[in-house]
Amino acid sequence: MTTTSRETDTAYVGASEEDAALNALYSDFNAANLIPLWTQIGDLMPMSPAPQAIPYVWRWAELLPLAEQAGKLVPVGRGGERRAIALANPGLGGRPYVSPTLWAAIQYLGPRETAPEHRHSQNAFRFVVEGEGVWTVVNGDPVAMRRGDFLLTPGWNFHGHHNETDQPMAWIDGLDIPFSYYADTGFFEFGSDGVTDESMPKVSRSERLWCNPGLRPLVGLDARASSPIACYRWEYTDAALRQQLELEAEGYASTTEPGHAAVRYTNPTTAGDVMPTIRAEFHRLRAGAQTANRRDVGSTVFQVFDGEGEVTIGDDRRELSTGDLVVIPSWVPWSLATDAGIDLFTFSDAPIMERLHFDRTQIQK
Amino acid sequence: MTTTSRETDTAYVGASEEDAALNALYSDFNAANLIPLWTQIGDLMPMSPAPQAIPYVWRWAELLPLAEQAGKLVPVGRGGERRAIALANPGLGGRPYVSPTLWAAIQYLGPRETAPEHRHSQNAFRFVVEGEGVWTVVNGDPVAMRRGDFLLTPGWNFHGHHNETDQPMAWIDGLDIPFSYYADTGFFEFGSDGVTDESMPKVSRSERLWCNPGLRPLVGLDARASSPIACYRWEYTDAALRQQLELEAEGYASTTEPGHAAVRYTNPTTAGDVMPTIRAEFHRLRAGAQTANRRDVGSTVFQVFDGEGEVTIGDDRRELSTGDLVVIPSWVPWSLATDAGIDLFTFSDAPIMERLHFDRTQIQK
Amino acid sequence: MTTTSRETDTAYVGASEEDAALNALYSDFNAANLIPLWTQIGDLMPMSPAPQAIPYVWRWAELLPLAEQAGKLVPVGRGGERRAIALANPGLGGRPYVSPTLWAAIQYLGPRETAPEHRHSQNAFRFVVEGEGVWTVVNGDPVAMRRGDFLLTPGWNFHGHHNETDQPMAWIDGLDIPFSYYADTGFFEFGSDGVTDESMPKVSRSERLWCNPGLRPLVGLDARASSPIACYRWEYTDAALRQQLELEAEGYASTTEPGHAAVRYTNPTTAGDVMPTIRAEFHRLRAGAQTANRRDVGSTVFQVFDGEGEVTIGDDRRELSTGDLVVIPSWVPWSLATDAGIDLFTFSDAPIMERLHFDRTQIQK
Amino acid sequence: MTTTSRETDTAYVGASEEDAALNALYSDFNAANLIPLWTQIGDLMPMSPAPQAIPYVWRWAELLPLAEQAGKLVPVGRGGERRAIALANPGLGGRPYVSPTLWAAIQYLGPRETAPEHRHSQNAFRFVVEGEGVWTVVNGDPVAMRRGDFLLTPGWNFHGHHNETDQPMAWIDGLDIPFSYYADTGFFEFGSDGVTDESMPKVSRSERLWCNPGLRPLVGLDARASSPIACYRWEYTDAALRQQLELEAEGYASTTEPGHAAVRYTNPTTAGDVMPTIRAEFHRLRAGAQTANRRDVGSTVFQVFDGEGEVTIGDDRRELSTGDLVVIPSWVPWSLATDAGIDLFTFSDAPIMERLHFDRTQIQK
Repeated sequence: MTTTSRETDTAYVGASEEDAALNALYSDFNAANLIPLWTQIGDLMPMSPAPQAIPYVWRWAELLPLAEQAGKLVPVGRGGERRAIALANPGLGGRPYVSPTLWAAIQYLGPRETAPEHRHSQNAFRFVVEGEGVWTVVNGDPVAMRRGDFLLTPGWNFHGHHNETDQPMAWIDGLDIPFSYYADTGFFEFGSDGVTDESMPKVSRSERLWCNPGLRPLVGLDARASSPIACYRWEYTDAALRQQLELEAEGYASTTEPGHAAVRYTNPTTAGDVMPTIRAEFHRLRAGAQTANRRDVGSTVFQVFDGEGEVTIGDDRRELSTGDLVVIPSWVPWSLATDAGIDLFTFSDAPIMERLHFDRTQIQK
Repeated sequence: MTTTSRETDTAYVGASEEDAALNALYSDFNAANLIPLWTQIGDLMPMSPAPQAIPYVWRWAELLPLAEQAGKLVPVGRGGERRAIALANPGLGGRPYVSPTLWAAIQYLGPRETAPEHRHSQNAFRFVVEGEGVWTVVNGDPVAMRRGDFLLTPGWNFHGHHNETDQPMAWIDGLDIPFSYYADTGFFEFGSDGVTDESMPKVSRSERLWCNPGLRPLVGLDARASSPIACYRWEYTDAALRQQLELEAEGYASTTEPGHAAVRYTNPTTAGDVMPTIRAEFHRLRAGAQTANRRDVGSTVFQVFDGEGEVTIGDDRRELSTGDLVVIPSWVPWSLATDAGIDLFTFSDAPIMERLHFDRTQIQK
Repeated sequence: MTTTSRETDTAYVGASEEDAALNALYSDFNAANLIPLWTQIGDLMPMSPAPQAIPYVWRWAELLPLAEQAGKLVPVGRGGERRAIALANPGLGGRPYVSPTLWAAIQYLGPRETAPEHRHSQNAFRFVVEGEGVWTVVNGDPVAMRRGDFLLTPGWNFHGHHNETDQPMAWIDGLDIPFSYYADTGFFEFGSDGVTDESMPKVSRSERLWCNPGLRPLVGLDARASSPIACYRWEYTDAALRQQLELEAEGYASTTEPGHAAVRYTNPTTAGDVMPTIRAEFHRLRAGAQTANRRDVGSTVFQVFDGEGEVTIGDDRRELSTGDLVVIPSWVPWSLATDAGIDLFTFSDAPIMERLHFDRTQIQK
Repeated sequence: MTTTSRETDTAYVGASEEDAALNALYSDFNAANLIPLWTQIGDLMPMSPAPQAIPYVWRWAELLPLAEQAGKLVPVGRGGERRAIALANPGLGGRPYVSPTLWAAIQYLGPRETAPEHRHSQNAFRFVVEGEGVWTVVNGDPVAMRRGDFLLTPGWNFHGHHNETDQPMAWIDGLDIPFSYYADTGFFEFGSDGVTDESMPKVSRSERLWCNPGLRPLVGLDARASSPIACYRWEYTDAALRQQLELEAEGYASTTEPGHAAVRYTNPTTAGDVMPTIRAEFHRLRAGAQTANRRDVGSTVFQVFDGEGEVTIGDDRRELSTGDLVVIPSWVPWSLATDAGIDLFTFSDAPIMERLHFDRTQIQK
């Protein structure tokens, strides 16, 4: 349908291009740093989003060995800053972007290594699909990283990582680097070469102050752009999802759709998304469940945290197992099904779409 | 100072009143349902809030026996609805109001008794200073009541209470009944004569869905006027306060003032107050602490949950022990001190003041 | 229905009162400053709002001569502050309140008189039904008062009035004095005995900065609790209403209901109500129009600005002419009809109801 | 400073690249659609925004003749949709983008021509620097275009343009096409081939309903993502600026800085920006004034509407006259000075920066 309507441009522009006067005009445009709309509109203003990014699956079984190999060959330290290896969407021309707005990488820290402190306006999180033993120090607050945890380092918070064990550790980083690069919003500052607090508490100070459900410390009554919770622990996420499925089984409305439990990580000072550009959620499908086919404006990335399943993206179907990472570009329809049950960590640029009123969702029931 | 300035009215009006023509005019005003400002302004528009409500202390040692006696003599059931006995501020002319806006009562439910279900536009909470064994059923969701718990039944939610033990139980009710009565906002509807769900789970469905810190169920993404959390459990409140004091001891900013930990109960769908008219908080002073002297526009009520202390209200000083209830009217200065440590549950009409931009606070350091 | 349900209380309480033990208990309650709910609930918590305020009409033809007489007998000046005569709702026990929350008065300023400057936390407006020649000086900004104008002096803005003509002038004052008195929010401060700027420009500085449609001065980008517009001029209000009716006649959706044009005065820094406690609107019914019968939680006052009509309040019907003032208490149904066309200025406590989530409206079509 | 810090990357990466194992690793990364951060970070995450877009000036004297020539050679109609010629920032690699987020074009409509109706999710405005005689029809509402007017066609509103005179007309279009293209948010729909209402009123229906200062129609009380005002007329803008300068001359705070008057076009349903992605303002410098040197995160475009002046961008200084268009990329410092006085229409992506909390401003006084 789009194609049909847009075919007229080609004809229309084609006819004009035979004209020498028109060629001269186009040459004058070029010299004056001008470009006509009428030759561009079909590409620039599609009938519906036509992303260059493509849906893609990265396999954990492939990612992790490459990260380990990088661990052997590439030092971590000031300058390179992090041993992070980004998922590069094959549609995005060799840029280290999982989608136009989002960065997703596997980060690897060897035994006894330290990634030095810095801060930047880009918003960042970590999600841990396996392992433990690293502490992320956020503005001086040491935060233990353990399987299933979701950690925040929102824009302009100093942060470093250090591994105090004899085991390496790998995890997923998510940031809005591509958006920031595109929109020219990036600031960066170096901090301490080590970490400013080497203690290794089980629970961060931020959690002690903020992770008491429904309770807000009186010293924290102002709204903040990003969540003050440095780490959303797996125990809570797991319990929330389990309870939703149990409530469903008991006959109460609690799940997103049958057999599909889901929570959104939120900023307790606003009740909104954890950071201004990134939404993060955790979804659990019980054995035998499947989601409605849906598409949204904006891009979504998810990682299988546990279990197995099958994602259908457009007409394509792929098997997924633990650690696999999938990107769904804007307006691409997708759904999930699982025989054995599956747990998924997801993140997206939905706050950008919603705050700028570009959000649209289509759910096919 | 106020008095001096206002003395002129008296003179001014006094002079006029000697005039027969003026008397005739006042009589005509009266017949026409008119009242002049100039005879009223000193009372109507004081230099600073001049509440009729007075600061007052009710003793738990006096309240509880009277509630027990009511338990023997007065049945609970449809019509009277609740065996609740309201604190009547001596300044408010015999009305059952702890302050102009707030209602506070002790409610008593005997063994095996049921207070029938109803709903009303008035917002209500319960706070439990001792005992357990009663379930409040909120829109069909049974909520256990235990010492230290803070329970909500926001406006227009059906609720009933039933005691399934052989022990009576008493707790504190807080509502905005006086405000609602004053502003003519009240609606009321009878519900079931019993409770619609007699099960007695330890944790309510509402808590299972909503009490996972920083996590919001995807089925609950809309902002709600009141918190969907039916009960804020003591374990969480206690832990939050303990951690604030520990963090303070470790050298980190976490307390309201030295030795004074405090949390505000919040609505996880807005990050704001639990209900549109009532703020609720819990405060803990460690042994030897004392608060700054402060005054606020709006009225505050607190109950000693544990420990002992001394409240100074204006120039008056009173010893407090567990269960005692205190009301501080608008703009009255007060402070607390404790030798042994003290825990306080507090509630106020601060959301009314803030939403209508009448809030002012003065803290004397 | 309410009556039937509530009859049970009487019986129930009556039976108890025969009991000597119960009498003793009630006496103990009294001594302890306690009042039981069960004897009060029928009054305190009605099935729907049961205002003590009654619907009432004050006739301009009666008000104005009394104000003129006051002008002869009562000086204006420091102490009495204003020659304002309040509408006293006959249901409110002799208090100068048009409704529980609102104050409405006729204010009268004789030739060459000055009402001295003061400020108070109570929010105030003026509406001019006839005359001109007075300037209200708001924080030093002189604001001319003319027929049809709606002027603001929000809480804590200094203001005085001075009449520089040989004619007296009268207008309507609206404030939240009763609410402020009830909730103990009032602060008051004396200012200059005269006015701080005696110039008499046609247009105030506030209007020059703020009354450019859709345009916000760059020096005024912060949200303010109240509108910075000191005066909403009649020309604009009249034009807005006329255009709505013209658009309706041309076939476009523009009116509230057929033949009923209406605008709300708004705060250009928030797009919300002009002041935190008071909503103000202007309504125009073309000849032959009538409004739906409606009722709202909260109280509404209106003044006929022009034309004639008939108000139906409950089952009562009254003819209205220019200047007449009507109060509609909470939840009382009412409608308007007009043969010749009618213009109405209205104000209400709707922002209180909405901000505290007590608002309900029922429209009978 | 940045350079110094970043030099380490080169060294660090350079050393690694000599290693064959490392080369193999990079090759494996490439095969797996992975890209390491450490080779990219200097470019991706600069110390402060390092836009590819450059500051640039397009001359009206050059633009208009090219548009006229296009008017002779290129038909307007379905397919090409608009005879719009975009300013292509020389730093953006031949894309028709004035900045990464914004589109700016000159649109030209010959005598008796019609640009057909369509709608798209991209937000659009027009600003008229000269001429008149075209009507833009927005969702069926005809809006006259005249010199100095600022017109909106927010996302998903049908709109077409028709010229009913014998004179051509040209104006400026501003849109968020680059953002929409980048973020994959674009939807497009064809509408009528002509315009759905060919009438030519002086004032649109939208203005009749919405351009009454401080007044909101009761049929328009809901917040809207974009302003319902189809046209902000020059008369109001001019008056607002003139009054600010007059107030300044009278000694009152009203201007942004001495001699610099400015207004922001706003959405009367929110008091915020006119559209979710685009801020528009009008600035006037009186003769002899100059602005502070400032820089902001985000990109700004302005057109000289009247007068002459001099812009300093970084160290570069350029003379400006009527119609000239200038783009200032993110974080580039700039200031303006004028001997004779200058009027400027400006627009920017500031709402994107603010809603996503990336906004920063530095003003050098």
